[in-house]
Amino acid sequence: MEILEQIKKTVNATLPEKCQVTKVEMEGPEVAIYTKNPKAFFENENFVAKIAFELKKRVNIRTDKTLLSDPAEAKKKIMEIVPEDAQIKDIAFNTAFSEVVIESIKPGLVIGKGGETSKKIILETGWTPNITRAPTQESEILRGIRHHLNKYSDERKKILKETAKKIYSEIKTSPNDWVRLIALGGFRQVGRSCMLVETPHTKVMLDCGINIANDSPGEAFPYLDVLHFPLDELSAVVITHAHMDHSGFLPYLFKLGYRGPVYCTAPTRELMTLLQFDYIDVMAKEGREAPYSEKDVKEAVKYCIPRDYREVTDIAPDMKLTLHNAAHILGSASAHLHIGEGAHNLVYSGDFKNGFTRLFNNVDIKYPRLETLIIESTYGGRDAIQPNRQFSEDKLLRVIKETVQKDGNILIPVFAVGRAQEIILVLENFYRKGLLDTKCYIDGMTRQAGAIHTAYPEYLREGVQRRVLQNDSPFSAEIFETANGKNRAEVLEDKGAIIIASSGMLTGGPSLDYFYRMAENPANTIIFVGYQGEGSLGKKIQSGIKTLPITEKNGKTRAMNINIRTETIEGFSGHSDRNQLVNYISSLKPKPKRILVNHGEKNRSIEFAKYISSKFRINTASLRNLDAVRLR
Amino acid sequence: MEILEQIKKTVNATLPEKCQVTKVEMEGPEVAIYTKNPKAFFENENFVAKIAFELKKRVNIRTDKTLLSDPAEAKKKIMEIVPEDAQIKDIAFNTAFSEVVIESIKPGLVIGKGGETSKKIILETGWTPNITRAPTQESEILRGIRHHLNKYSDERKKILKETAKKIYSEIKTSPNDWVRLIALGGFRQVGRSCMLVETPHTKVMLDCGINIANDSPGEAFPYLDVLHFPLDELSAVVITHAHMDHSGFLPYLFKLGYRGPVYCTAPTRELMTLLQFDYIDVMAKEGREAPYSEKDVKEAVKYCIPRDYREVTDIAPDMKLTLHNAAHILGSASAHLHIGEGAHNLVYSGDFKNGFTRLFNNVDIKYPRLETLIIESTYGGRDAIQPNRQFSEDKLLRVIKETVQKDGNILIPVFAVGRAQEIILVLENFYRKGLLDTKCYIDGMTRQAGAIHTAYPEYLREGVQRRVLQNDSPFSAEIFETANGKNRAEVLEDKGAIIIASSGMLTGGPSLDYFYRMAENPANTIIFVGYQGEGSLGKKIQSGIKTLPITEKNGKTRAMNINIRTETIEGFSGHSDRNQLVNYISSLKPKPKRILVNHGEKNRSIEFAKYISSKFRINTASLRNLDAVRLR
Repeated sequence: MEILEQIKKTVNATLPEKCQVTKVEMEGPEVAIYTKNPKAFFENENFVAKIAFELKKRVNIRTDKTLLSDPAEAKKKIMEIVPEDAQIKDIAFNTAFSEVVIESIKPGLVIGKGGETSKKIILETGWTPNITRAPTQESEILRGIRHHLNKYSDERKKILKETAKKIYSEIKTSPNDWVRLIALGGFRQVGRSCMLVETPHTKVMLDCGINIANDSPGEAFPYLDVLHFPLDELSAVVITHAHMDHSGFLPYLFKLGYRGPVYCTAPTRELMTLLQFDYIDVMAKEGREAPYSEKDVKEAVKYCIPRDYREVTDIAPDMKLTLHNAAHILGSASAHLHIGEGAHNLVYSGDFKNGFTRLFNNVDIKYPRLETLIIESTYGGRDAIQPNRQFSEDKLLRVIKETVQKDGNILIPVFAVGRAQEIILVLENFYRKGLLDTKCYIDGMTRQAGAIHTAYPEYLREGVQRRVLQNDSPFSAEIFETANGKNRAEVLEDKGAIIIASSGMLTGGPSLDYFYRMAENPANTIIFVGYQGEGSLGKKIQSGIKTLPITEKNGKTRAMNINIRTETIEGFSGHSDRNQLVNYISSLKPKPKRILVNHGEKNRSIEFAKYISSKFRINTASLRNLDAVRLR
Repeated sequence: MEILEQIKKTVNATLPEKCQVTKVEMEGPEVAIYTKNPKAFFENENFVAKIAFELKKRVNIRTDKTLLSDPAEAKKKIMEIVPEDAQIKDIAFNTAFSEVVIESIKPGLVIGKGGETSKKIILETGWTPNITRAPTQESEILRGIRHHLNKYSDERKKILKETAKKIYSEIKTSPNDWVRLIALGGFRQVGRSCMLVETPHTKVMLDCGINIANDSPGEAFPYLDVLHFPLDELSAVVITHAHMDHSGFLPYLFKLGYRGPVYCTAPTRELMTLLQFDYIDVMAKEGREAPYSEKDVKEAVKYCIPRDYREVTDIAPDMKLTLHNAAHILGSASAHLHIGEGAHNLVYSGDFKNGFTRLFNNVDIKYPRLETLIIESTYGGRDAIQPNRQFSEDKLLRVIKETVQKDGNILIPVFAVGRAQEIILVLENFYRKGLLDTKCYIDGMTRQAGAIHTAYPEYLREGVQRRVLQNDSPFSAEIFETANGKNRAEVLEDKGAIIIASSGMLTGGPSLDYFYRMAENPANTIIFVGYQGEGSLGKKIQSGIKTLPITEKNGKTRAMNINIRTETIEGFSGHSDRNQLVNYISSLKPKPKRILVNHGEKNRSIEFAKYISSKFRINTASLRNLDAVRLR
């Protein structure tokens, strides 16, 4: 690797001899510098910043393996060094990276003032601390992923080296180099989002989703078969957020043999793993077979290279990726691709919210350069205007109170990841302000997803972040109780209770179970707060169907009357409504030269593209799946 | 092959026992029925028509191999049976097809009244005559191809069997089956025409051209590298006409390993072979290397399956091809693809002339069904209106006469195939009407191309066809003499001579040699009658450059003054002008639902697409190379 030689030269030229560098390695897009004298780096901290600036890469300073003390001893020392109040939950040693992963409730105390505690750990044990936040609630999935990553750290080190070789391979660029985009799924539809960005040297997949609402393989999965190339020619996969329609087909790539990098934020990695496992589980319960197994999901996790927002990363010889906040769900991103030396800049918005949410900071609207924008259009239709948030919250409170007065229960079906947490924050706010004191049950996966939010407070809106860091997490407020399959009947005996349960469109999961139990009682209320896909039961209930055939335990089928009060409250969506989409385009800096519309029902996408085209006089098209567009 | 069993059943059910069928085989899309009693088929000729109708396929009745008499004896018999006046030029036996290829000047006499002579040959020799027309002028290339086909007839028989297996393989269609078109070359440009039509089951390439005007491989060849699939997955290649920008890259497919069918008309096969050989030759003379060799050209010839106009042919399990007259050059075609069971109908116009030509019948404008039209736009610009033909012919005559009066010579650079023959017919008409009596020299390949025209009179306009059949071929009129490298100086001594020579854009070949010899004399005239590509010398001369650096034989470079009179006469083009393109779309039956524009300089294509879109209110786009469009 040519680049490694160059980097070594820069390292030698930048760092003084006392730094005692013993090895320089690539770890994917990052640089690892091994030292026999970590102290030299602390004495003048600018070294790390300086070398990172010179290399324009993330730099990891690692201690030489000869300095690593015995793990048992090191663990003892760490427990001595770190104040008890930090509440260390887990310590794991990871020789491949000379790292000790320390998971604690208060990671700030593990770092110490000015990094003092952390430095002390290095100097006294030889291990470099990788300090992560333990969720304030227990999360099996997060624990599982962290253990998995540790267990396979040798393999991950190898993977990162292999990835680096590809990222920094020599290519012969030409002024004729083209860029094209192939629509593989999620165009003129919601579901199975997937596209390929291709240059003569590089093939990068953006999202790899699955259409859960559709059974037939021809309609459920992206059109990978038109790619015609073996998957090991894929340079990288980028996942913008964890929802199954963006990430759900990723393990299948690994089943098919893909063994390359997957770029996403850390929370996206955890949440998509949660959702993929759940998908396999739900399929199994329904006696169907998922297209991949847990093994494939776990394999994908090994290949994830988490990136923070606004961190520029080389992902191919002619491509740099930067993820930006999309404010849709935890860790959701818009992807910016810088292709060639300024040849083309593409932003794929991903699903995004350009409007107030309790969970997240505002969506990013500034990019260094931008020629092509790919924008979602879930609510791109002329009629798709959402009410303002205050109105929605007031209505939610009113409907809940009216139901409670009648001794009814309230079912709010939600996507386990995203809407659930937003509604939880809204309810917690009612509770904190004394507007509500009824119990709220959170069933199933929603609880797990909440826990992952508390492990990544830096991805949350400042106020929420602060509360999580101060161990006053709104997700753990007293009002909330955990429910599960075993105590659903009990939950419903608790008159006036609110139940937050997935799935969001009543296509399965606990929400469906609750619905069956609650549907015949007119005192109950179901409140839809999220998107209901065409053909889903949620959509049908919303549209006012009066009966539903159900199969009783004795095997007999009968028509169940739907007497439950049905309410839809718009305005909580994690998607931008029509006005917010238009405002996003208005505010984008710089203005794109071309806009491609995806992720919306056919007519909405077409209508939105037409509107944008005439309003902004920007070349705008609503692509179809299988279309390919030359961008340059 | 499931289908063969079905065909055998139909054959048995349709033909009486006395027909003594010994074998039924597929020969590509055709059916071969071997019989021990060919007489039975003559007694009731309806058998052939009946079985062809039942099978909806071309049916070849072949005699059982046991009936084939010794070739030497058979040859003797044929010479006895056929009247001498038929002027047999060649007899070749072809055991693989039980065929005797009889090439004669008057093939009608080999067939005989009501097919009597032909029948007699079968009954007396056992061999089925395949009666071809000998060109009235000698043509090495034609002879070469015919011998080549004979020599490899066993191999061709195998190829046809293999092809049939693929055409009639079992596929599982679905109502979701999609159709997409990938632009691989010749979009927003003239040169390297190439596109792929793809369904879940089939991949068919339409044209495979080369951009001779451009040297760099990235600009000269179609973007085959984005296909990503091995070429043996290609179901078929269709070549619409012989010009290098449509056929010139075909041998390269064979060099890369493609070994599948190539559908085109018979004259296209002969003419493209001529042009491809010439290309290799010219490259070699310029000390450059062609991307393929003569071996590859010959290999491609073996895989050609010639089709007549309006003959419906199965080319894949879900695709039927029909070629239609495009009136551009000899054998030029528009390609109609019927995809799926009525799922989609596509017409690729190819290069076409919607206007009067002396050479060809009118372009076809009626199709059974049509959803997508791909149309050329060489003269699609607002300003690209050609004068009417009478005006052009008058001007040509006037310019020639003015030059002759001054004892000057006239150089008309032409594409060897197409414009050359049209101009020859125009000049021959002047001569026949007594308007002109000056000598006309035809140099180089143009002569060969003319000969091929006389072998396929059925592809010519009725009047010309009749004259060729009556051995009064205008191509052989007294006015025309053959010139070549050796006597070019002599030719020019003949004051007042017309020289017709390729290349058409002075990019090489004899026309360039003549030009150098003639340029400094103001008594001479050069007349441009065809398209001059951007950057070509022809275009520069046309635009009025006054000097040209040339290298003398002594190796010194000097500036040559261009004193020659330069005239451009529009109106002879084999391309439709703007109005003719628009009229073509108006006249097309049925109206297409979508129009895609190719084959034109960037601005012309874009402008034409816009105009068509607003005039006809049909969804029209000017694709870029590498774009792909979902058609269904």
